[in-house]
Amino acid sequence: MKVSIPEATVARLPLYLRCLSDMAHTDSACSSEDLAQAAGVNSAQIRKDLSYLGSQGTRGVGYNHEDLREQIRKVLGLTSVHPVIVVGAGNMGAALANYKGFSTWSFEIVAVLDVDEAKIGTRVNGLIVESLRQLEQIVEEKRVEIGIIATPPSTAQSVADRLMASGVRSILNLAPTILKTDDGVSVRRVDLSTELGILAFHLKHM
Amino acid sequence: MKVSIPEATVARLPLYLRCLSDMAHTDSACSSEDLAQAAGVNSAQIRKDLSYLGSQGTRGVGYNHEDLREQIRKVLGLTSVHPVIVVGAGNMGAALANYKGFSTWSFEIVAVLDVDEAKIGTRVNGLIVESLRQLEQIVEEKRVEIGIIATPPSTAQSVADRLMASGVRSILNLAPTILKTDDGVSVRRVDLSTELGILAFHLKHM
Repeated sequence: MKVSIPEATVARLPLYLRCLSDMAHTDSACSSEDLAQAAGVNSAQIRKDLSYLGSQGTRGVGYNHEDLREQIRKVLGLTSVHPVIVVGAGNMGAALANYKGFSTWSFEIVAVLDVDEAKIGTRVNGLIVESLRQLEQIVEEKRVEIGIIATPPSTAQSVADRLMASGVRSILNLAPTILKTDDGVSVRRVDLSTELGILAFHLKHM
Repeated sequence: MKVSIPEATVARLPLYLRCLSDMAHTDSACSSEDLAQAAGVNSAQIRKDLSYLGSQGTRGVGYNHEDLREQIRKVLGLTSVHPVIVVGAGNMGAALANYKGFSTWSFEIVAVLDVDEAKIGTRVNGLIVESLRQLEQIVEEKRVEIGIIATPPSTAQSVADRLMASGVRSILNLAPTILKTDDGVSVRRVDLSTELGILAFHLKHM
């Protein structure tokens, strides 16, 4: 299914889903103003974003809470389970493997890999850390769709290359470096010092 | 100093700085095309972004590598040290406290706090984990400018409230929830399942 949704809207949909989940204990209708307040986005923007899903809401009532969650989940492809591999079993990799948020969003971490012999064989959140040498085999056997790179920056590119060569088309990069990736591969980058850099700018200029 | 730079440009400056650092071993001139390729942003955008810094480059030569780094560091306020507090000494908090990237960007983690008696008194990256009860005192004594929240989502808001009441104006939120913050407080949110949600969309629609 091809859906034409602007990239900026796609990036906000998980945020709306997060807000709707936080609001789950409230009543079944949800106005764009409720969602706007929870998400910190103005309500006109929310109505526009949700119109791409074909969700119009009902005037004076709003959106049906459950229906809207389901629609966002469908569009984001969260209605089927996505096998995820974590490369790097350091603090960040272990934090990821233990992160409860993933499974509720239908991401399943199926393997954690490392090069360090001292870490291989130890347990992280019920998974035994496996050798990086097995990357290709595990990607194939477990039908891995998403690779998370939580290695030092110096090895991130070689791991990305091996993931791509194995057919992985989606990468979440937590290593503080910029990856070169093939056409058709989606990469999201989480760089904590970048986030702090933006905060530092506001500290200085506000 | 007030500098009027669009928010989207501010968000890209740390990325350029990261790329320039990765390129530091190369020669002293750097063209907008070099930077474009490293950052994955088109070169016209880069020239426009850098023009806000008053950096024009030299036609046919490019930008002076070191000067450009220094200019970005100045605008982002990375020329002075920013004391940072980490609340939550779980895997994510420990990963942050151990993260080498911060200090090279002049962020100094001055304290790690937790509520868990089993964690208080243990060491994380040379820092002794302190009780959350001491938050206000530590913020004052260590002149904390930035608070990183790495707690479970249920306690994130109360921690944010205490940070703001203590005068912290910049928050990096790693808890998977949306914080309500006062006017004039900058918040950046890193939500790993949001990033995976965006990747899942591309998996489904590419």
